Amino acid sequence: MKDKISTAKLEKQVLKSMRDYLEKEGFIEIFPPKIVRASGACENIDTLFEVGVNGNLCWFHSKTPHRAYLSQTAQLYLEAFTPYLKKVYSVGPSFRAEGGNDTRHLTEFTMLEIEFAGDFKKLLECIEKIIYRVIKDLLVLPINIREELGVGKKEVERLKKVKSAFPKVTYDKAIKILGLPFGSDISRKNEKKLIARFDGHPIFITHYPNPLWNHGKGIEVEKFFNMIPDPENPARVLSADLILPFGGEAVGAAQRVWKFKELKWRLENSRMFKRLKEKGGGIEDFGWYLERVKEKSVPHAGCGFGIARILEFLRGEEDIKKVIAFPSNQENII
Amino acid sequence: MKDKISTAKLEKQVLKSMRDYLEKEGFIEIFPPKIVRASGACENIDTLFEVGVNGNLCWFHSKTPHRAYLSQTAQLYLEAFTPYLKKVYSVGPSFRAEGGNDTRHLTEFTMLEIEFAGDFKKLLECIEKIIYRVIKDLLVLPINIREELGVGKKEVERLKKVKSAFPKVTYDKAIKILGLPFGSDISRKNEKKLIARFDGHPIFITHYPNPLWNHGKGIEVEKFFNMIPDPENPARVLSADLILPFGGEAVGAAQRVWKFKELKWRLENSRMFKRLKEKGGGIEDFGWYLERVKEKSVPHAGCGFGIARILEFLRGEEDIKKVIAFPSNQENII
Repeated sequence: MKDKISTAKLEKQVLKSMRDYLEKEGFIEIFPPKIVRASGACENIDTLFEVGVNGNLCWFHSKTPHRAYLSQTAQLYLEAFTPYLKKVYSVGPSFRAEGGNDTRHLTEFTMLEIEFAGDFKKLLECIEKIIYRVIKDLLVLPINIREELGVGKKEVERLKKVKSAFPKVTYDKAIKILGLPFGSDISRKNEKKLIARFDGHPIFITHYPNPLWNHGKGIEVEKFFNMIPDPENPARVLSADLILPFGGEAVGAAQRVWKFKELKWRLENSRMFKRLKEKGGGIEDFGWYLERVKEKSVPHAGCGFGIARILEFLRGEEDIKKVIAFPSNQENII
Repeated sequence: MKDKISTAKLEKQVLKSMRDYLEKEGFIEIFPPKIVRASGACENIDTLFEVGVNGNLCWFHSKTPHRAYLSQTAQLYLEAFTPYLKKVYSVGPSFRAEGGNDTRHLTEFTMLEIEFAGDFKKLLECIEKIIYRVIKDLLVLPINIREELGVGKKEVERLKKVKSAFPKVTYDKAIKILGLPFGSDISRKNEKKLIARFDGHPIFITHYPNPLWNHGKGIEVEKFFNMIPDPENPARVLSADLILPFGGEAVGAAQRVWKFKELKWRLENSRMFKRLKEKGGGIEDFGWYLERVKEKSVPHAGCGFGIARILEFLRGEEDIKKVIAFPSNQENII
């Protein structure tokens, strides 16, 4: 139980830092539902868990029968509040029906998500400030407390070198450095190579290919439909992944499309929507969200922080099962 | 959207008060998993949602096939940490597969749960302090802010009258007052009658019948297996429900059985366990928890606060759908 206690304490410490920062900046915490229709999906709707009621995978006796899923992201919910509350955040579980019993995948993990009326530049700054704040708060703790949290001397020396602004590499530059063809997904192994190029510093990979653009060929890397095209190059979107040493991709971030017609078009023409229709879903899964955007919308941006991956980064740990007190995966649930 | 914004703001305000109180008292926030085996059940395992993976209600390809459920309570998880961290809490969704589209039931709601190394008396004091703190923090807000939160003048006058200690009525006295036979469940309608007897003040109903006691007849009211018998009258348990005007039962609380053998016996002889076995479950659903208790356990107590019911109390609202921004029930999910 000693390791589990140390991990619980570190998780609490990290979330306290993040929350303190957000509250000071005027972000308002909201509490999104976790049983949702397909509007709780990230890019990949194939990894949605389904919700069963009395041995039946249909949501009660609804007039139009439909499935219910476990939310992967609260993003669309946070977006609905942004025009009114300006800055919002939420903390809660994200569910993914994926992976086996390995060092990278969990079926459930804590995610902190933010959304605010602002642009891409502000978003990257905000992420840098939050991660930097987490590190600073940890470094000022007495040495015995830090050790209780499982962060030793070697890790402290490494964390002291992290600067307040992180290097930014465009997707195009990243694949060039890595010698990959356009459209490739950047694997964990390649993320590590990139980080090594930047002296083991956290980095942003930015400006991923626009998923709704004709690139002249199929592309492997797949981003969310409502990421906004870069006005300077509409074949790319204003998105960024934060890649942390040890943790890997810890934050997925983007400025969002906020104009109703453009948004609806992008949704209906996305790869995700095609798969949703094959599964028997449709535009009605996003009905509540589209209604909200139609009523009121402002330019906005947001992201989600995977807490366990931040803990891996702080501890210099590469096995995600070791930074969650009771990890949940295909083989283990409590 | 105006009502939803007001509700989100009130929810945030209430949780901020509760969290501030707990942090000041040294409670440590932990983040329990929500996909669990039957150890995530309250008394009633028939209202557990099941988790489906690719159209299949069995948890992946586990060696011994079993079902996975959505957690109704984080209680057992919090209990596992109590011997080490002394005071813990969590905030998250509680899932219930129940009710229709009415004014009392939701399929999902936010619950704040606490657990600490302490006794029944300390537990009731802690609940009083938390509810009182929520009220006080609300009453010092400027009038325009309070109105933004949907708490008007009439409600403020009512809340001003709430005293820092709440009347306590034993279950035996409560059914006597209400003219009910022993073993009855106390319905919403009867809760209201009781509250009226105490001038509309929040009240505790305490010392419910021990579910593992031979009362000489079947009893309707059903409490959790690990509530500790009252040493002065082992036919009753050291449990309490907080009944709020408008909100009704908002907190379920108890001192817990902490000795391994007694706990295991109570689990295996509980009505819940019988139903679990009929569903194909068994002692292995509670394996991780029993292991923890066997390793280390201390006298402890805890409770769960249903946030929406506290909001009903503050607003003088009796429709639970109106105190959640996007309410989830059998007919509506987003």
